[in-house]
Amino acid sequence: MVSTTSKFVAEMIGTMVLVLMGCGSAVIAGADGTTGVGLLGISFAFGLSVVAMAYAIGHISGCHINPAISLAMVAAGRMKLGEALYYIVAQIIGAIIGAGILYVIFNNHPGAELGPWALGSNGWGTGYLDEYTTVAALVAEFVFTFIFLMVILGSTSTKNIHGGFAGLAIGLSLVLIHIVGIKITGVSVNPARSIGPAIFAGGEALSQLWLFIVAPVLGGVFAAFTYNLLIEKPEKV
Amino acid sequence: MVSTTSKFVAEMIGTMVLVLMGCGSAVIAGADGTTGVGLLGISFAFGLSVVAMAYAIGHISGCHINPAISLAMVAAGRMKLGEALYYIVAQIIGAIIGAGILYVIFNNHPGAELGPWALGSNGWGTGYLDEYTTVAALVAEFVFTFIFLMVILGSTSTKNIHGGFAGLAIGLSLVLIHIVGIKITGVSVNPARSIGPAIFAGGEALSQLWLFIVAPVLGGVFAAFTYNLLIEKPEKV
Amino acid sequence: MVSTTSKFVAEMIGTMVLVLMGCGSAVIAGADGTTGVGLLGISFAFGLSVVAMAYAIGHISGCHINPAISLAMVAAGRMKLGEALYYIVAQIIGAIIGAGILYVIFNNHPGAELGPWALGSNGWGTGYLDEYTTVAALVAEFVFTFIFLMVILGSTSTKNIHGGFAGLAIGLSLVLIHIVGIKITGVSVNPARSIGPAIFAGGEALSQLWLFIVAPVLGGVFAAFTYNLLIEKPEKV
Amino acid sequence: MVSTTSKFVAEMIGTMVLVLMGCGSAVIAGADGTTGVGLLGISFAFGLSVVAMAYAIGHISGCHINPAISLAMVAAGRMKLGEALYYIVAQIIGAIIGAGILYVIFNNHPGAELGPWALGSNGWGTGYLDEYTTVAALVAEFVFTFIFLMVILGSTSTKNIHGGFAGLAIGLSLVLIHIVGIKITGVSVNPARSIGPAIFAGGEALSQLWLFIVAPVLGGVFAAFTYNLLIEKPEKV
Repeated sequence: MVSTTSKFVAEMIGTMVLVLMGCGSAVIAGADGTTGVGLLGISFAFGLSVVAMAYAIGHISGCHINPAISLAMVAAGRMKLGEALYYIVAQIIGAIIGAGILYVIFNNHPGAELGPWALGSNGWGTGYLDEYTTVAALVAEFVFTFIFLMVILGSTSTKNIHGGFAGLAIGLSLVLIHIVGIKITGVSVNPARSIGPAIFAGGEALSQLWLFIVAPVLGGVFAAFTYNLLIEKPEKV
Repeated sequence: MVSTTSKFVAEMIGTMVLVLMGCGSAVIAGADGTTGVGLLGISFAFGLSVVAMAYAIGHISGCHINPAISLAMVAAGRMKLGEALYYIVAQIIGAIIGAGILYVIFNNHPGAELGPWALGSNGWGTGYLDEYTTVAALVAEFVFTFIFLMVILGSTSTKNIHGGFAGLAIGLSLVLIHIVGIKITGVSVNPARSIGPAIFAGGEALSQLWLFIVAPVLGGVFAAFTYNLLIEKPEKV
Repeated sequence: MVSTTSKFVAEMIGTMVLVLMGCGSAVIAGADGTTGVGLLGISFAFGLSVVAMAYAIGHISGCHINPAISLAMVAAGRMKLGEALYYIVAQIIGAIIGAGILYVIFNNHPGAELGPWALGSNGWGTGYLDEYTTVAALVAEFVFTFIFLMVILGSTSTKNIHGGFAGLAIGLSLVLIHIVGIKITGVSVNPARSIGPAIFAGGEALSQLWLFIVAPVLGGVFAAFTYNLLIEKPEKV
Repeated sequence: MVSTTSKFVAEMIGTMVLVLMGCGSAVIAGADGTTGVGLLGISFAFGLSVVAMAYAIGHISGCHINPAISLAMVAAGRMKLGEALYYIVAQIIGAIIGAGILYVIFNNHPGAELGPWALGSNGWGTGYLDEYTTVAALVAEFVFTFIFLMVILGSTSTKNIHGGFAGLAIGLSLVLIHIVGIKITGVSVNPARSIGPAIFAGGEALSQLWLFIVAPVLGGVFAAFTYNLLIEKPEKV
């Protein structure tokens, strides 16, 4: 039996790693493909954070490290709301710690300067990457989280005999989502991942935070209902 | 027992993901390796879509999400024609939905404009990438689908004890095929993947659609016969 | 019991795929990281060819698709010389077919021109990439094949309980070797892979072929002896 | 029972591969994403070296190939100090051999010249990449090794039923760490990996070596205590 403390610490460290390493790849290594790691490198950083942590703490907490996942698990009948809320507190604390460590490292080099949407914050509209509209941002975050949860729900189903591959499939699907979506919103699909950097960045990163809470949660919950109703009936408890 | 509705929905969603994310990587993130994800990033997007969906819906429908695969499975004696046609309807609907979502997102940013072969449509000849000839396009799509099906047939053989790796091997082989072939035809090896964007793009994307139906189907069926005759005799039913 | 014909066809198709797709990535998609797939993309093409074929035909022939591997298996006491020679004939035929298909596709686009070391031929010295010396080419091909075979011998050992991962580990080790070595010799570590393109390219690609036969075979055999003597004693037959 | 000689040779060869291939990717293939393999390619080289060797020698020695891992295993109660010291000697010898082979290859091409921090040496401060401060270097190496060990301790836990994926998860986590950290210190998280090139490079690479011994060892040991105390109690021996 895994203790609730273990689960809390695992979710906190896991989310810390996701935010520090995912956002760190953009902030420290850079989105330019010639001199930095490029958009592809940033995509791998976010996805490989999940692969790494899935096999590190999956057997402890299930490695959600994402409030949209925990809430979708509640909607899918696989988790109790109380435990999900407990997970979410750990995730948000971890995300803030991750952004904080990134802030300390980033600030310690010549020319470091926090601009708008700093530390890898999510955003959209005028001044943010390819300046997609609010509609595009909403559709993208909703659909991407829907896809992400379809992979999570299917690959971790008790009827899926290849469950060992779930961590790999889920992490690689996050690589995929970032490859496609970075230019739209920087890709959240995870409220905690957006909250961490926004707290340090402030400004528009903070005022746009609502979308990265609403859209991923709705997309995740919609995936849970779709999966249970149309793809695979949940086992009765 | 998985219901036919579940299989239909699974194939539809799976193909939606492949078209939205694969074509989306080219349209939204860009083929330039310095400012976008580059040809390598696009290749990973198509292949990782398959990896993700293979572990998400493989236990539901087998995750074909490609009419050439379903027809090759019929040729290999692993599926009935009726079920294959049912799958194909789901795949084509899913592909159109995927291209539609991509259209909505892409259209919601400044400078969005649908050119010829828009939304990641396949094509060849004058004006399409490196302007390969019809012969090159035919040979490439036939051979690439042949290779793709060899990986599928071998890795999912009941005599292959490492069947859990099939989703990974198949998806990574699609990464491989895109790395090599994007400059020739944009890489189809999948009629549904070509139909989706072509319906929105119209023009040459539509008039060139025949090749991306004929060549992948022939390549896939040829692989099925080669596999059964020369590599591994099918089990008698 | 797998028939010898099946093994022959499997090795032939597997090596065809390796040469067509590996060399094809360089010739068709290009080594420039901004407009093409870059050196990293080419590296993935070679390695993912092995991953794909390992899970496709591994249960048929073991998926050597490389004479240096077959001969090292003989040195390691895991294969009989007669069967190795039979494998090698299939591998060389497959490599020539792969290079031939690549020639047909490549020739069917504007501006196609076979220069020296055409179709992805291996080489070294004046005029070849970073112009490494013969000593560097010899050391590199010897050491890289040694490393490649250490991964093969260890991951496929009957005492290794994670044998299912061998195809992945071996293929990814070939990605690794290409990442490091392309600028030295284009990376062979496989006589068949070098013979295929050289036959079509002629000239220096043909006259330099000896090194890509000698060094990989010596490196592979040295790895076999090292493995058996210092790392893991072979089981008695 | 695996002999201590086998373990020594395995650790030595494994660390040789890590240093030769990881540092080789930077020195031979280059950090420029257009003409070389880029930072992303270098990241994959280091990580895939670990994936390859994990499945090659994991069943022999556990594939530490890193003194910080061996010492963290002692702190976690999973290894005896005597054996760890024995491992560390093998690792340092292997690292020096790897750097030596790289020196021989690199020196055999026109324009080869050893500058400061040559052969992929780690470093920081004025003249080293983005010129991060000593504080940033210390924090980064400590935190990255902490994360690396969390993945190692969790994925290889006897309570983790997906232990077969450990080699993949650990190697990919090293890809991740390099994606984020190369511009800070070149990424060590491994004293042996730093010692190898520094011996040939001399100068600042040698005088800065202390940080790449202290920070990874402290980060690794801290991870061991954190894991045992807060995440998963160790089994009693």
